[in-house]
Amino acid sequence: MKIVVDAFGGDNAPASVVEGAFLALQKRNDIDIILTGDVEKLKNLVGNREHIEIVDAKDVITNDDQPTLAIRQKRDSSLVRAFDLLKEKDDVVGLVSAGNTGAVLTGAILKIGRIKGISRPALCSIMPTLKDNGVMVCDSGSSVDCKVEHLTQFAIMASAYYSCYTGAEKPRVALLNNGVESHKGNELTKEAYERFQTLPINFVGNIEAREAMSGDVDVIVADGFAGNVLLKTTEGVAKSMSEMIKKQAKKNIFTMIGALLMGKFKSIKRKMDIDKYGGALLIGCKKLVVKTHGSANKENFCNTILQVATIYENKLNEKIEKIVVEIADKLEKNDD
Amino acid sequence: MKIVVDAFGGDNAPASVVEGAFLALQKRNDIDIILTGDVEKLKNLVGNREHIEIVDAKDVITNDDQPTLAIRQKRDSSLVRAFDLLKEKDDVVGLVSAGNTGAVLTGAILKIGRIKGISRPALCSIMPTLKDNGVMVCDSGSSVDCKVEHLTQFAIMASAYYSCYTGAEKPRVALLNNGVESHKGNELTKEAYERFQTLPINFVGNIEAREAMSGDVDVIVADGFAGNVLLKTTEGVAKSMSEMIKKQAKKNIFTMIGALLMGKFKSIKRKMDIDKYGGALLIGCKKLVVKTHGSANKENFCNTILQVATIYENKLNEKIEKIVVEIADKLEKNDD
Repeated sequence: MKIVVDAFGGDNAPASVVEGAFLALQKRNDIDIILTGDVEKLKNLVGNREHIEIVDAKDVITNDDQPTLAIRQKRDSSLVRAFDLLKEKDDVVGLVSAGNTGAVLTGAILKIGRIKGISRPALCSIMPTLKDNGVMVCDSGSSVDCKVEHLTQFAIMASAYYSCYTGAEKPRVALLNNGVESHKGNELTKEAYERFQTLPINFVGNIEAREAMSGDVDVIVADGFAGNVLLKTTEGVAKSMSEMIKKQAKKNIFTMIGALLMGKFKSIKRKMDIDKYGGALLIGCKKLVVKTHGSANKENFCNTILQVATIYENKLNEKIEKIVVEIADKLEKNDD
Repeated sequence: MKIVVDAFGGDNAPASVVEGAFLALQKRNDIDIILTGDVEKLKNLVGNREHIEIVDAKDVITNDDQPTLAIRQKRDSSLVRAFDLLKEKDDVVGLVSAGNTGAVLTGAILKIGRIKGISRPALCSIMPTLKDNGVMVCDSGSSVDCKVEHLTQFAIMASAYYSCYTGAEKPRVALLNNGVESHKGNELTKEAYERFQTLPINFVGNIEAREAMSGDVDVIVADGFAGNVLLKTTEGVAKSMSEMIKKQAKKNIFTMIGALLMGKFKSIKRKMDIDKYGGALLIGCKKLVVKTHGSANKENFCNTILQVATIYENKLNEKIEKIVVEIADKLEKNDD
């Protein structure tokens, strides 16, 4: 299987992308990686490495580019070239990019398209938890105005994704809400609560944002606006508290205590590290598209490439297609 | 001025409530505090203390009580008695409770009512920031389905509140959104962004949840669902990270390093401490109603009582009434 990586997306591109690809190939030599971007620069970094192919693309989509325009007009950009390969080549099974989020989402929808029966793909991010198991947040920001039909599909898709990625048989799926009681919520979540009980998932009820990091649930379903607030608040508070700890350590920088504090800080930082979980899958697309964060390092690129390989092997999209058909059939039968 | 405190609301009631009242009176002896609750128990705790009055109430509303039923039926509860006093006595200017949130909100609306022209009161909470200035989140959970008219009023009220509480002349008001750019957002926030630019407030644009703790804005406006996610995620992550630090310290418990870590931990915990900011004001009610959190300690009760005194003296509600009239007049003129 081949995985295409936008080698010029993200703050640390292309060096970290190339290093990440090397790392991934050290762990698995049964995959091939295609890097898109300036061929001269990439050749210098890659040299002659088996299982890596370079496809030239002279242009780059930046964070300042307007997503739809960029996808339409920057045809020789590393991202658009990557999407073209994903679309055209049957053996290319997934795409990884740390570039402009809007452009990745737009590219996926315009160039790859949705799985039949899925009305909207959703961004499914993975957050750290106290129990080190990671929790998926779906949608974490791609679909900011949602109806209950959308949340229903997010729940089904994310549950299937969690199974394919971790092997868990019955992922615990919760609904993000402003209270745990079944009557709590806004119009959308109240309706979703009812609907989720009828789905072929392990729905464990509402979860409040304060318990999101507990590690007690595997998937948190939310509309993209609330999911985005959850994800970004987590990032922001973790960063702020890390800064406080660092400051405390720096005050004692020349002492043994400073060094020890710094060590403890690093172990906490590792726990809060999102790089180990890979990137955010745009779930519901015909092919696997993973957006990882702009400051991704080589470990993250490696993990994201391996993530795509795992999900592909475990046939995520086939499973989603199957469930969608089953649910449609069931609804039809109920109508008869 | 008299402030009534529900002496049997919250996990640490009534002891912390009474101790908090004592602390508040040490700081200001020009206020009177009315405590509602079991008179025997309270007399034992209060003794003969000037400026404290006890009003008997034999019943208690618990967190298991259904809010509307409890307010209607538990007439001899400490909370309902407190609302009755607030409603009936002109010299009682505000109410403090750490009890059942739903019951406090319901009581405020049923017994006290809204300021004329305000369509919905909003819960305005204060969160810690890196710069120690505190940021107000409005609405933080009382109004989970909002229209742009509601957000507009939240922005105006919270801006006035921040001024009255801190003395700041032009509080920086931001809109919680999934991106800082003006075109970002869901239907509600896109419309709100346009509207906020026409308001007599210092609107500084969109803010992403990850910057909420930066201390760079004073007020964050959100619908109650998203605001609740912001507030509770902050609480949850802060608690989770504190637990990680504590664990690290405990591993070294018998050493000097453990003790030092514990010390550093406490200084970070103080920074993240919400008790110092008082409680959440239900802004837009005819009289001041402040809900503080269930685990409030004596410092928090003290700060919340003093908070009510400060806002009352700085005439928050008169200011809100005035702005509402001014805006209505302006709209009328524009219609002419």
